[in-house]
Amino acid sequence: MISSRVFNSAAFRFCPRSVSGRVPTVRPTIGTRRDFSAEAKAIVFETNGKPLDVLKLHTFPLPDVTDDTILVKFLASPINPADINQVEGVYPTKPPFLTDVISSTTPLAICGNEGAVEILDVGKSVTQFKPGDRAIMRHTLFGTWRTHAIANIVDLTKVPFASSDITAVQAATASVNPTTAYRMLKDFVEMKDGDWFIQTAANSGVGRAAIQLGRLWGLRSINVVRDREDIDDLKRDLESLGATKVVTEDEIKDKGFRNTIKEWIGDREIKLGLNCTGGESTTNIARQLSTGGHLVTYGGMARKPVTVPVSLFIFKDIHLHGYWLTRWSDSHPDEKEQIVNEILGLLKGGELKDVPVDEVVWTADMSDQERLDAFKHGVGKYINGSRGRKQVLVHK
Amino acid sequence: MISSRVFNSAAFRFCPRSVSGRVPTVRPTIGTRRDFSAEAKAIVFETNGKPLDVLKLHTFPLPDVTDDTILVKFLASPINPADINQVEGVYPTKPPFLTDVISSTTPLAICGNEGAVEILDVGKSVTQFKPGDRAIMRHTLFGTWRTHAIANIVDLTKVPFASSDITAVQAATASVNPTTAYRMLKDFVEMKDGDWFIQTAANSGVGRAAIQLGRLWGLRSINVVRDREDIDDLKRDLESLGATKVVTEDEIKDKGFRNTIKEWIGDREIKLGLNCTGGESTTNIARQLSTGGHLVTYGGMARKPVTVPVSLFIFKDIHLHGYWLTRWSDSHPDEKEQIVNEILGLLKGGELKDVPVDEVVWTADMSDQERLDAFKHGVGKYINGSRGRKQVLVHK
Repeated sequence: MISSRVFNSAAFRFCPRSVSGRVPTVRPTIGTRRDFSAEAKAIVFETNGKPLDVLKLHTFPLPDVTDDTILVKFLASPINPADINQVEGVYPTKPPFLTDVISSTTPLAICGNEGAVEILDVGKSVTQFKPGDRAIMRHTLFGTWRTHAIANIVDLTKVPFASSDITAVQAATASVNPTTAYRMLKDFVEMKDGDWFIQTAANSGVGRAAIQLGRLWGLRSINVVRDREDIDDLKRDLESLGATKVVTEDEIKDKGFRNTIKEWIGDREIKLGLNCTGGESTTNIARQLSTGGHLVTYGGMARKPVTVPVSLFIFKDIHLHGYWLTRWSDSHPDEKEQIVNEILGLLKGGELKDVPVDEVVWTADMSDQERLDAFKHGVGKYINGSRGRKQVLVHK
Repeated sequence: MISSRVFNSAAFRFCPRSVSGRVPTVRPTIGTRRDFSAEAKAIVFETNGKPLDVLKLHTFPLPDVTDDTILVKFLASPINPADINQVEGVYPTKPPFLTDVISSTTPLAICGNEGAVEILDVGKSVTQFKPGDRAIMRHTLFGTWRTHAIANIVDLTKVPFASSDITAVQAATASVNPTTAYRMLKDFVEMKDGDWFIQTAANSGVGRAAIQLGRLWGLRSINVVRDREDIDDLKRDLESLGATKVVTEDEIKDKGFRNTIKEWIGDREIKLGLNCTGGESTTNIARQLSTGGHLVTYGGMARKPVTVPVSLFIFKDIHLHGYWLTRWSDSHPDEKEQIVNEILGLLKGGELKDVPVDEVVWTADMSDQERLDAFKHGVGKYINGSRGRKQVLVHK
C-alpha cells in the first residue's frame, strides 16, 4: 500500500487549507527522506455539475511536513448527501478551488467532508499526534476524497480508541449522522422517558442513529420508510435497533391510520418529528404531532418542499425548524468533540450499531482509471438510492 | 330603537351559556316590569354549511335578569373569519346548539364571537356594571350576532371610555385583530428599533393593526397585498398608517425583487413574517426572512397550505409557528384585558386608526326577513372579498 518512492521538491509550495479557509504559505523542508509515497490521489471537480459527469481523478505531489503540520493517510471517507450537493454547486458551503497547492494549472476542488485518517508523520512541534494515531476531521471542507494530505493540528480530532475497538469506517461515519440525530433529539423540545418521536427516512444514517439514541434515552419512535419488496426485513432490521414502530409512507398517508397511532401512544405525546424528505411524507408526519409539537427538517431527499396545512400551525400550535449540523458545529466545536467521543464510546460498547456500508475500495495497485471508476460506481449507487447503505471510500 | 313591549314569562327557563360552556339553570324572576323589549333576535344556524344557505333569523323571548345576571343590548357585532368557519363547521371551537334557552324545539347555534354591548339592566348583586355602561365580550363563543342577551359578569369586560371617545364599532373590533397583531409582534422574536417585519394580507384588520403598532414601536414593515385596480390608493392608505413599504404579490414573487428589498433594509434584518394567506404568497415572504427569522401563520385566506423549501429551514434556520388568539386569551385573561384597554386608549388618542367598516344595519322597524337579508348581504360581501373592509352588524 505504501510505496518507497521519495518525494523531494524544494520548488513546491504546499498550502494546506486552514480552518478559516485561508491558504497559508508553508515553507517546505528540503530533502527529508520518507519511507512512503508523498503523492496524493484525490477525487476532484473543475466545474459544478452532475457528479458522474464532472468528477475526475487528480494526482499531485505532497510536500514534506513542516514543524507544525501533519502528514495523514486517509483510511475511510464517506460519500454524504452534502458532498454530492457541493459537487452539484447547490450547497451553501463550497470547497475551495486550488491550483498550485495541488500542482494543477486548472483550479480544482477536492470534495468530501467526513473522514478518518492515520497519522504518518508529524512536524517536530506537533505534540498532540504521533505516527500511528488515528483521527477524524474536526471541520467540514477539508476535502476527504483522497489518499493523503498535509493537515494542520486544528483540522483533526484524535480517535481515542484502538482500531481493534473502533474500525476506520466507524470512526469516519461517527461525526455527521449520529451527531445530527443526537442534537435534534435534544435541542428542540424536552422529552421525557416514554415520549414519542416520529421520523421520515428512518432507514437513513441519521434515522438509524435517532432510533438507537432514542432507545438509549427511553424514547419511543414511529419510523416511516418507503415501501419496498423486502419491507418485512427492513422492519425487523430497524426494530432490532430499537424502533418502536416502523410504518411505510403508504400506511401513514391513510387517514384511518391515525387511530392506530393513537392506540400505540395512548396518553403520551408525539412531541417531535424529524424530517429528511419533504413532500407528502413530511406533511403526513406533521399531522401526527401532538399539540405544541416540533418538526425539524434536516434534509430533503424527496426534493420537494415542506408543505403543512395552515390549521396545524394555528390550532395545533406546531412549530417547524431546520437543523444544519455545520452551523451548530461551528459554534460548538468543543461540545461537538465531546459528543463524537461519546458516540465512538457507544459504538465500541455495541450500544450503537454500525451503519450499513458499501465499501468503495481503493488498493495501492489500482490505476487512476480504476480508482475513478470505482468511486463513480459508489456515487452512482448513492444517486440511484442506496437503500440505507452508506457509500464509503476505503483504502486497502 | 327600544320598544315598550314588556316581556313576562314565569314558564321560561333561561340558561345563559357560561364561560366554560356549562349551561346553568337560572330561575327567572317573575313579573318584573321593564321599559324595553325582552325579545331577542339572533342570526342562527341549525346545521353547518355554507353561511348563505344555512343562516336564519330566530326570535326568542328573554327572561328577566336574576340577582347575578345582566341584560345587554348589542351595539355592534363584527363578522370575523372565525365566525364564518364556525358556521361552516370547520373551526375547532364550536358554538353550542341550544333549544329551551332560546325557545326552540330544534337545536340552534347563535354565532358571532366579538361584540360591543350596552348594559340595560343588572341584577341586584351586580356591582361591576350599571345600566348605560358599555362592555365587550371577555370570551369567544358568546353568540354575538343578536340584538339582546342575558349575560353573566364573567362574560363581559367594561369599556373604560365614553361613547364620545370610543365608538361602538371601535370597541367591538378592538379585541380580536389588534390583539392578534400585538402579540405576534411581541411573542416570537425580540425586535429592536428599526428592525423589519414582513406580512401577507397587509390590508386585513390584523395587517392594519400590525402596521400601526409596528410604527408606534419603531418597527419597519414590508406589506404584501393582492394587486388590484386601485392599488395606488391602497398603497397610499397603508403608508398613511405607517407602512414602510407596500408591495403586491406579483411584485414580490419576482426573484429580482430580492435586490430591491435588500436596498430597503440595508444592514438590518427581516426577523419576522406574519402570514394570513398560505400558498405562494407565504412562500415568497418566507424567502425574504433573514437567517434565523420566524414566520407566524394566523390565517389561511388563500385556502392553501404553507409551503416552504427545505433549504430555508436547514441553511437559513427559519422557524415557523402558528398563532391562535383564543389559545392565548384562555391562558392570559387578565393580560388580554390590559391589552384591549391599551388598544382602546390608542384608538381614543388617534394613534390607531379605525379599521374600514361596512355596516350591516339593523333598525328597530325592520322585519325579520329584512334583518336576515341585510345580514346575508354583509356575509356575501365578506365571502366575495371585502377588500379589507370589515363587515359589522350595527344596531340603530
